[in-house]
Amino acid sequence: MAGQKPSIPKGTRDFSPEVVNRREYIFSTIRTVFRKFGYQPIETPSFEKLSVLTGKYGEEGDRLIFKILNSGEYLNKAGDLNEYAEMERPEAKMTPRISEKALRYDLTVPFARYVVMNFNSLTLPFKRFQIQPVWRADKPQKGRYREFYQCDADVVGSDSLIYEAELAAIYDEALSNLGLKNFTIHLNHRKILEGIADAAGAPEKFTEICVSIDKLDKIGVGGVRAELEKRGVDATAADVIFEIIGFEGDAAAKLAFLKEKLADSEMGMIGVAEMEEVFSILSHFSMQNGTIELDLKLARGLNYYTGTIYEVSADDVKIGSIGGGGRYADLTGLFGRPGLSGVGVSFGADRIYDVMEQLDLFGDLPLAGTKVLIVNFGPSTLSAGLKTLNDLRQAGIAAEIFPKKTKMGKQFGYADKKHIPYVVVIGEDEITNGTFVLKNMETGQQEILTWDELLGQLQD
Amino acid sequence: MAGQKPSIPKGTRDFSPEVVNRREYIFSTIRTVFRKFGYQPIETPSFEKLSVLTGKYGEEGDRLIFKILNSGEYLNKAGDLNEYAEMERPEAKMTPRISEKALRYDLTVPFARYVVMNFNSLTLPFKRFQIQPVWRADKPQKGRYREFYQCDADVVGSDSLIYEAELAAIYDEALSNLGLKNFTIHLNHRKILEGIADAAGAPEKFTEICVSIDKLDKIGVGGVRAELEKRGVDATAADVIFEIIGFEGDAAAKLAFLKEKLADSEMGMIGVAEMEEVFSILSHFSMQNGTIELDLKLARGLNYYTGTIYEVSADDVKIGSIGGGGRYADLTGLFGRPGLSGVGVSFGADRIYDVMEQLDLFGDLPLAGTKVLIVNFGPSTLSAGLKTLNDLRQAGIAAEIFPKKTKMGKQFGYADKKHIPYVVVIGEDEITNGTFVLKNMETGQQEILTWDELLGQLQD
Repeated sequence: MAGQKPSIPKGTRDFSPEVVNRREYIFSTIRTVFRKFGYQPIETPSFEKLSVLTGKYGEEGDRLIFKILNSGEYLNKAGDLNEYAEMERPEAKMTPRISEKALRYDLTVPFARYVVMNFNSLTLPFKRFQIQPVWRADKPQKGRYREFYQCDADVVGSDSLIYEAELAAIYDEALSNLGLKNFTIHLNHRKILEGIADAAGAPEKFTEICVSIDKLDKIGVGGVRAELEKRGVDATAADVIFEIIGFEGDAAAKLAFLKEKLADSEMGMIGVAEMEEVFSILSHFSMQNGTIELDLKLARGLNYYTGTIYEVSADDVKIGSIGGGGRYADLTGLFGRPGLSGVGVSFGADRIYDVMEQLDLFGDLPLAGTKVLIVNFGPSTLSAGLKTLNDLRQAGIAAEIFPKKTKMGKQFGYADKKHIPYVVVIGEDEITNGTFVLKNMETGQQEILTWDELLGQLQD
Repeated sequence: MAGQKPSIPKGTRDFSPEVVNRREYIFSTIRTVFRKFGYQPIETPSFEKLSVLTGKYGEEGDRLIFKILNSGEYLNKAGDLNEYAEMERPEAKMTPRISEKALRYDLTVPFARYVVMNFNSLTLPFKRFQIQPVWRADKPQKGRYREFYQCDADVVGSDSLIYEAELAAIYDEALSNLGLKNFTIHLNHRKILEGIADAAGAPEKFTEICVSIDKLDKIGVGGVRAELEKRGVDATAADVIFEIIGFEGDAAAKLAFLKEKLADSEMGMIGVAEMEEVFSILSHFSMQNGTIELDLKLARGLNYYTGTIYEVSADDVKIGSIGGGGRYADLTGLFGRPGLSGVGVSFGADRIYDVMEQLDLFGDLPLAGTKVLIVNFGPSTLSAGLKTLNDLRQAGIAAEIFPKKTKMGKQFGYADKKHIPYVVVIGEDEITNGTFVLKNMETGQQEILTWDELLGQLQD
């Protein structure tokens, strides 16, 4: 094993102190807003039973779940190995026999599982947030990792539309607090999309229509039209769809337009009425830097959403969505507790990081590192140095002493590279006089100070 | 899948808001002390390449590493499946062919890997801390989990004994800040143990002696003697060992005693001299609630430590060690960068949690939850309620509104169960008068207040 050149698995990352600091700033900003809106933190295990996860994310999702190999003599449960040798795709049979656990794929399914298992101790509506990593065996590419954090807030056990509005306000407050100046919180409603499918005379093609519209950003109108046709939605129906989702105007104008166009669709009119109420509630909430937009082109592809849907875009940077979510009429039904409605949003911390970096929003983030380094002159002054180190730490100041006597240049270089703003020199003279030489690493200025003066400067 | 009763894998846990809050308090207390002593955070991926982890933790450790199944048609790389059918223990051959990644087993090996991979960008000595979960396929039992957090601080690239002393001071400050009143930081030195093996005339039995002494707490003197004999250490040698490790006295007395007993062991005398210097440096550092003890019975079993070793015990609670660590002369050599000395300590967050719970040290930990709930009387007063909700949040107060009109008792019950200390009632009268009824949930007291008075009360 000696001498091997180490590396990390593809799609994963090490985080340096500076990056951890910036990430922690993002998480703590979001966490503070979640708490202010009454959401409480939970945490779930990194791995779940495979049976809890499979079948929840579609076929593609099932393939992307990282499975954990059983321990010990796991092949005992695999049955006759000779049989597998004959099979076309033996993994389909083998995997569930040699793996019973898998890494969390998102935070929503574990949350649903948590709610069902802890139902009797929960206060409903249960407002929870969860900031934990998830893992997906996706092909890694720029901005897409195999391990990444999700920051989710969900409320379960109420269908009140107040939550729809407050989750939009959470996006606004958290992203504004992070320094984003221009971003759009896109809202739509799955029942409005159902209404559009009705109006187009293709109610049975609702799912296909959503999946196709969802690709509009990537493949354009022509591409979506081609895809709709391939999926059995004819040109006349597509015309209706594009007429409606292409309508320009503010939310009030769009809602008025929809009331006319979807008048014959019961589902559509429910969606319009709910969306209208969400906007009415939102009118009471102050927004900072975010723009709320009723975005009829927003579809969120294939998923379990049944009501309001969200997607957030950063308007100054070309990057995919930095957040998304929606309402699901029944999530916990999968685990034997039907009828609990929920709504939630998720922040994409990695993309937000990239946006903030591109916009230079981390500029002057304090590193919370060492404030002062004490120079080490060796045995004759070490006691005084250690005593000062102790006194500074007692006073709550982040302090270090250089570990060995060595050239001053090297010791100052250490302070410089570690961004330590002050260096204290305690030589024979200082010990005799009871003083300290304090050097400001930024200005290069040096001062001879008493202990009280030193403390005063460093406690600023 | 519908209707399945969900559960979580054995040895894992869900954490409720209250528990997350308490755990976060432990982590943030430790983190603050790490930072104050100049340690900076890094994070490494949850899984590493299997080759990075195997062979680092002994045979037992290798078995306890959770391996991740390769994705896709992973059996293609397994070779002829018929061959495995004939084998005695086919997993030994199969595992490395179907698994290339594994979950982190501790934080030290990933740290060593990180140092080697990022060597050119590090400022040495590199002081890092890391607070992340690790996973072990151990048999779960009380206080032992398959997923648990480690909180490690290590410094690499210096053999200065100042770090040995400051790591003991870190234990003292962090555990004292958490409210522990009585705990002991046990110190010893692997070279002192080598000296004892020399003095016993059994230098070649050093490892066996360490492994045996390490079990003293569990199996007692008789048990250790039996084990030593079994491992080829005769009764005369055992007498010498027990005479030395059984010596009673303070650190100074023990060191004087060791100088006499280990006089003929070069290694032993190096260990004594280093330990003496560590205690000398420690004499400059203020200790709060911890007791530092030179504990000649401390051995830390089989491991890579080569110098000072640490173990921390909580003295008011019967529980295993709540922390441990030591110096390793060369850790990164495994990854092709030999000669970097390091020293580090680890806090066992789960055991510390259990100790704090047993000693009732979480008593009045603030929950950082919602401060005020606004009662919902339905449409006629909803606008006023939403406006107040927005104004409270704008003022930085964690606030919620009950999501639907329902019986007052139910709304107050929600506040009560969620430990929300205040409820605001805004009815028709209040709207007319521009006032608010504020109910203190603890005292039951109700007051009619103006907006400024309300804000004043809630901002306390």
